[in-house]
Amino acid sequence: MVGKPVPEDKFSFGLWTVGWRAADPFGDATRPELDAVEAVHRLAELGAWGVTFHDDDLIPFGSDTTERDRRISRFRTALDETGLVVPMATTNLFTHPVFKDGGLTSNDREVRRFALRKVMRNMDLAAELGASTYVLWGGREGSETDAAKDVRAAMDRYREGIDTLAQYVRDQGYGLRLALEPKPNEPRGDILLPTIGHALAFISTLEHHDMVGVNPEVGHEQMAGLNFVHGIGQALWQGKLFHLDLNGQHGPRYDQDLVFGHGDVLSAFFLVDLLEHGGYEGPRHFDYKPPRTEDIDGVWASAEANMRSYLLLRERALAFRADPRVVEALERSRVPELSRPTLAEGESPADLKADRTAFEDFDADAVAQRGYAYAQLSQLAFDHLLGAA
Amino acid sequence: MVGKPVPEDKFSFGLWTVGWRAADPFGDATRPELDAVEAVHRLAELGAWGVTFHDDDLIPFGSDTTERDRRISRFRTALDETGLVVPMATTNLFTHPVFKDGGLTSNDREVRRFALRKVMRNMDLAAELGASTYVLWGGREGSETDAAKDVRAAMDRYREGIDTLAQYVRDQGYGLRLALEPKPNEPRGDILLPTIGHALAFISTLEHHDMVGVNPEVGHEQMAGLNFVHGIGQALWQGKLFHLDLNGQHGPRYDQDLVFGHGDVLSAFFLVDLLEHGGYEGPRHFDYKPPRTEDIDGVWASAEANMRSYLLLRERALAFRADPRVVEALERSRVPELSRPTLAEGESPADLKADRTAFEDFDADAVAQRGYAYAQLSQLAFDHLLGAA
Amino acid sequence: MVGKPVPEDKFSFGLWTVGWRAADPFGDATRPELDAVEAVHRLAELGAWGVTFHDDDLIPFGSDTTERDRRISRFRTALDETGLVVPMATTNLFTHPVFKDGGLTSNDREVRRFALRKVMRNMDLAAELGASTYVLWGGREGSETDAAKDVRAAMDRYREGIDTLAQYVRDQGYGLRLALEPKPNEPRGDILLPTIGHALAFISTLEHHDMVGVNPEVGHEQMAGLNFVHGIGQALWQGKLFHLDLNGQHGPRYDQDLVFGHGDVLSAFFLVDLLEHGGYEGPRHFDYKPPRTEDIDGVWASAEANMRSYLLLRERALAFRADPRVVEALERSRVPELSRPTLAEGESPADLKADRTAFEDFDADAVAQRGYAYAQLSQLAFDHLLGAA
Amino acid sequence: MVGKPVPEDKFSFGLWTVGWRAADPFGDATRPELDAVEAVHRLAELGAWGVTFHDDDLIPFGSDTTERDRRISRFRTALDETGLVVPMATTNLFTHPVFKDGGLTSNDREVRRFALRKVMRNMDLAAELGASTYVLWGGREGSETDAAKDVRAAMDRYREGIDTLAQYVRDQGYGLRLALEPKPNEPRGDILLPTIGHALAFISTLEHHDMVGVNPEVGHEQMAGLNFVHGIGQALWQGKLFHLDLNGQHGPRYDQDLVFGHGDVLSAFFLVDLLEHGGYEGPRHFDYKPPRTEDIDGVWASAEANMRSYLLLRERALAFRADPRVVEALERSRVPELSRPTLAEGESPADLKADRTAFEDFDADAVAQRGYAYAQLSQLAFDHLLGAA
Repeated sequence: MVGKPVPEDKFSFGLWTVGWRAADPFGDATRPELDAVEAVHRLAELGAWGVTFHDDDLIPFGSDTTERDRRISRFRTALDETGLVVPMATTNLFTHPVFKDGGLTSNDREVRRFALRKVMRNMDLAAELGASTYVLWGGREGSETDAAKDVRAAMDRYREGIDTLAQYVRDQGYGLRLALEPKPNEPRGDILLPTIGHALAFISTLEHHDMVGVNPEVGHEQMAGLNFVHGIGQALWQGKLFHLDLNGQHGPRYDQDLVFGHGDVLSAFFLVDLLEHGGYEGPRHFDYKPPRTEDIDGVWASAEANMRSYLLLRERALAFRADPRVVEALERSRVPELSRPTLAEGESPADLKADRTAFEDFDADAVAQRGYAYAQLSQLAFDHLLGAA
Repeated sequence: MVGKPVPEDKFSFGLWTVGWRAADPFGDATRPELDAVEAVHRLAELGAWGVTFHDDDLIPFGSDTTERDRRISRFRTALDETGLVVPMATTNLFTHPVFKDGGLTSNDREVRRFALRKVMRNMDLAAELGASTYVLWGGREGSETDAAKDVRAAMDRYREGIDTLAQYVRDQGYGLRLALEPKPNEPRGDILLPTIGHALAFISTLEHHDMVGVNPEVGHEQMAGLNFVHGIGQALWQGKLFHLDLNGQHGPRYDQDLVFGHGDVLSAFFLVDLLEHGGYEGPRHFDYKPPRTEDIDGVWASAEANMRSYLLLRERALAFRADPRVVEALERSRVPELSRPTLAEGESPADLKADRTAFEDFDADAVAQRGYAYAQLSQLAFDHLLGAA
Repeated sequence: MVGKPVPEDKFSFGLWTVGWRAADPFGDATRPELDAVEAVHRLAELGAWGVTFHDDDLIPFGSDTTERDRRISRFRTALDETGLVVPMATTNLFTHPVFKDGGLTSNDREVRRFALRKVMRNMDLAAELGASTYVLWGGREGSETDAAKDVRAAMDRYREGIDTLAQYVRDQGYGLRLALEPKPNEPRGDILLPTIGHALAFISTLEHHDMVGVNPEVGHEQMAGLNFVHGIGQALWQGKLFHLDLNGQHGPRYDQDLVFGHGDVLSAFFLVDLLEHGGYEGPRHFDYKPPRTEDIDGVWASAEANMRSYLLLRERALAFRADPRVVEALERSRVPELSRPTLAEGESPADLKADRTAFEDFDADAVAQRGYAYAQLSQLAFDHLLGAA
Repeated sequence: MVGKPVPEDKFSFGLWTVGWRAADPFGDATRPELDAVEAVHRLAELGAWGVTFHDDDLIPFGSDTTERDRRISRFRTALDETGLVVPMATTNLFTHPVFKDGGLTSNDREVRRFALRKVMRNMDLAAELGASTYVLWGGREGSETDAAKDVRAAMDRYREGIDTLAQYVRDQGYGLRLALEPKPNEPRGDILLPTIGHALAFISTLEHHDMVGVNPEVGHEQMAGLNFVHGIGQALWQGKLFHLDLNGQHGPRYDQDLVFGHGDVLSAFFLVDLLEHGGYEGPRHFDYKPPRTEDIDGVWASAEANMRSYLLLRERALAFRADPRVVEALERSRVPELSRPTLAEGESPADLKADRTAFEDFDADAVAQRGYAYAQLSQLAFDHLLGAA
């Protein structure tokens, strides 16, 4: 049986998650505002380790300096009282109407400059609060008609923007790494850098590419019908999984932000398996929305549910990997054989070409008869997921 | 009115397109085999400029050397007689059962070695026939259960495979560039390098990254609900659009390979606009399937339809860009303003921070009231598409 | 060239369309409130024929009787001044938090009773204003977890609700027909009666089934990847197309409510073709959202764009049907042959069984060789769409 | 712990499932033909109760009478030896090229007549073998372009076809009920009767509607992103769930036919819960494909996996319903309250209108504050699914 979450589990929540007032495109808010200080205390009581925020979550857009300082000070006190850390912060470049055509890639240059400044200002605060990751979700960087946006100019501005911000971090000596968060659409018709892949590709073109990685979100990849575990695998492989957003989604549709585990359960199982066995040591960050039907009790119940789902899946994944039948099944499926290089040590293309066993004497029809025994392996995973192995 | 296609249009077709016998997951072939020589002659008559092939399209898997030579010789003669060129070739690493778990990333090392040799052999032929692009579609590189494939090991093998092939091309002095073709799923449950983005990201990790680009296919991106024009824009921006596959698709579902233009017409319009105005000078390659309902007349009618659709859309796109109302509308929408750097020449992050007009004195509420006039621009595009502007 | 819209075109708009203030799940409103009276005048000037509304569009939720009467009176005056009609009205059972678990199928019986009353009240107004159709969109009738809703109980309540409302209309002697509007998801995770089909099936179980039809929306069906033209075809065939919502969508994703024609253009073409040739004589009602990037000029431009798109597509569809080459192509594709009954007049199953030509002497392989010439027909449609036939 | 399947579990398999030779759109068969007799014996050994078939699974298309009789006789013997029953049979109206434009709705009238005869012939065999359900999957009834099919004429022919077949069953005195199987697309671009809803709606128009129900398939609904549990709920509610196909799918993409449970696990849990508690007493029929990577051992392992998944999920669902915390949570979420009629016994619309507590005195804002506690309920289900409650 899994226990209560502990700080070592590294569970973190965005202020905007439990604080979501549940207004949606067709409905008004169903819950009152939640004080950030209360959120910090309740999350700590539930066993969370960290809390994250957009600038505007903490300090309403347009607040004056006095109000700003007061808000920050109260937040700091809450952190001190609870021991919660701030592993990550980010900027809201999407709520205010000024960002209606984007922040870093708005067609309006004044908006782009304002956006950069808004990020820089919150980077100052993030660094001050000890964050190590700064997330950038370009939710408004996109278009509804292809006529509206010169994609290559937009990519130029996106690169200029990210490199400028990375340079700023470097100039200031902040201990921040940047993490880009991809999403295919919503709220824009099509968003630039729509998937983990597009973001990684973009990063490879940056001057400060070493400082920039990705912050993938379960639901965002699944909105494109993509395999999140594959995406995370590639990001890890490229050394770019700086942070991630855990939640749930039911495939291509609006962004649901369900509780982690309450979407594609099998994928969540393999994700936790990969995170726990793949060398990822960052936060387990939940970016979900308590359902609009819930009152404040439901809010906290849903916060707990995220952590419990993770812990249960972790327990299942550990048991899966420890099961000798699984080890044997993986062997039978030749999974470990994929880690063996295809070429022998020092073998050149010419050497390979000279190896008749590889082609001329290779009996394709005979080899084709080998079964991969994935059916057995797949059912073992299912059994472990259900605690029935 | 658009005319008949001419070689300058650079239209090319895969042998496997017009040659598709129309067997599908639920049905037997509805058409007899089409001789490659006849295909070449008919495509030339219709105005095509090039023809492309998988090794097994031209030379059935397992043919002996005599048969192989005979097939190649007949094909060469047809090329000579018609003037058709071979701009691209590729390898079939998916039809034979030996590839059921993949080619370059099969868990079975022997299969991986065989796959490399199969590619190398057809690269020899491609070079001999004067191709400049060699496409690799890893349609079987993937899995149906996440337990079956260690994604990071798979990426290692994929990289090893592509780098080995690039090295081979270099060693042989072939004038070939490699182009990876992404696809999210089908025939595997999830395919590695599922989108343009993932492929570009992967390429950035290669030793021979300069020799490797992408070969995106309209329908493959649209199967993930992604904006193809955005994807092509990013590929062009990264200098990696080496080749492309034109066809049609109706969103997330099985791979339809419809005639170009017969899927998302608006996207096809903006794609042609981008290709014609974005500096892409490669082939306009059609990778489609004549509907299974068609006899051989329908095959040729559908081949013609691809080219006609492209030419009509090109005519529309040229008129769109030439229309002074469009130029004015783009200006009103500030589209050209996105090409202007966000920072002034030589401006540092510190300089930007010191610019009070960018933040402290910036009136977000006032700027937010500016409309972008995308509605007008979008309708102008619609009018031009319909030839009604 | 198409002209300006005229009342005979029967174009109508929801007050909530041009009046949408452009708040979305990630952003605040970008436009000020639009007075219903101004909306009526502007729509009339643009050539619209009708205007439709939710109760709360016209009279804010919770208004007292004086305010209510004042609002209605101003609206009536605007209608009188412009000649605009009110062909349809509907109820807002989704914005207020009380409906967070649904209206007619909320688990809370008090909410269900309140919902019925809210509908009845607006039916009174609809009848008074001369509407002939009353739409019911159950956007909140659904769930996020299957544990939360007993679907069969929900269907019982849904039927009870609709039959009660139909009975009310009958009791009052109103000239209203009810039209149910299906949608698969958003704002609920899964909505009951998700498609045209489910709604038609449900209607067949009603006591007052003769008074109830459907109000399908382009984007709602396309969110499920379904062919809207097929859906409308079935609804027409079942005599149940009472009203419809025209707009645009790019496949499975959030509900985009694009301008009509600015989504799947080919489908829009065939839709207009079906509406114009299929005996539908109801309103051409636009349920779209002016993009959030737009100011008020963009709002009116987008309103115009809907009507212009329809008129252009109508012109194209008329030309398509009138083209002798199309008539011939349809014949070649045996399209008219489908209208001929499969059995001869009076032929029984036993007669068919006795007809050896139908089976024993039927040469399946020979008949299989007949091509359907759909490729040619499809390209003719494409040419007509582009005004290039 | 769940045991081995027993006949009382009513597990059945199509001959075409374990017999699938694993040819797919991009690959040749990877497995040899499986003798129907061997399939029957092996399925019986694994604990299956029934076996189903398409005519052509048992008797290859075009077999002469002698061969036909021989095949049937061997099959009968195998049934007798094993005790397996034949609860359902169906017709292959999709593999042979003659059906390339459909069976009952082909534009070609001769094909339609042949299709009817092919169904009638296999109905004779189905009745003879004691089947009680006859399934009709119209996989080829559809189109790739809307120009190709007059949907209303197609619906006329579909109705004529189904009513003719129902009449035939009645005339022959067979104990068969007909079950239509919906699917949105693949192998046709768009298939008629794409969802459970459309099929139910169509059935309501039949002369013999009482004899006709649906045979929904998990993956087919999920290809349209629809909630299968909701669909089954509506079919049960309409008394039309005659049979069903269990398998797995990962949302909108090609038809995967995964092992039951190996797709959307949470939905599979709630489906089993509904089937076990919702009064469905028919077969638990698996319509899946053993992965193409598998040899014959993998085939049988995957067959077992389907049944094991069902039994595990049944065990979980029974525990869920029996848990007093769940009963309490359902109560708190007011789930049982939805079974209470909205109107009081005998209450008329006028009575409701006169009830001031329902509207005039209803405090919407106060009622809106009630939480539905779905977060807690949802996590309880998750815990039960994982065997961790």
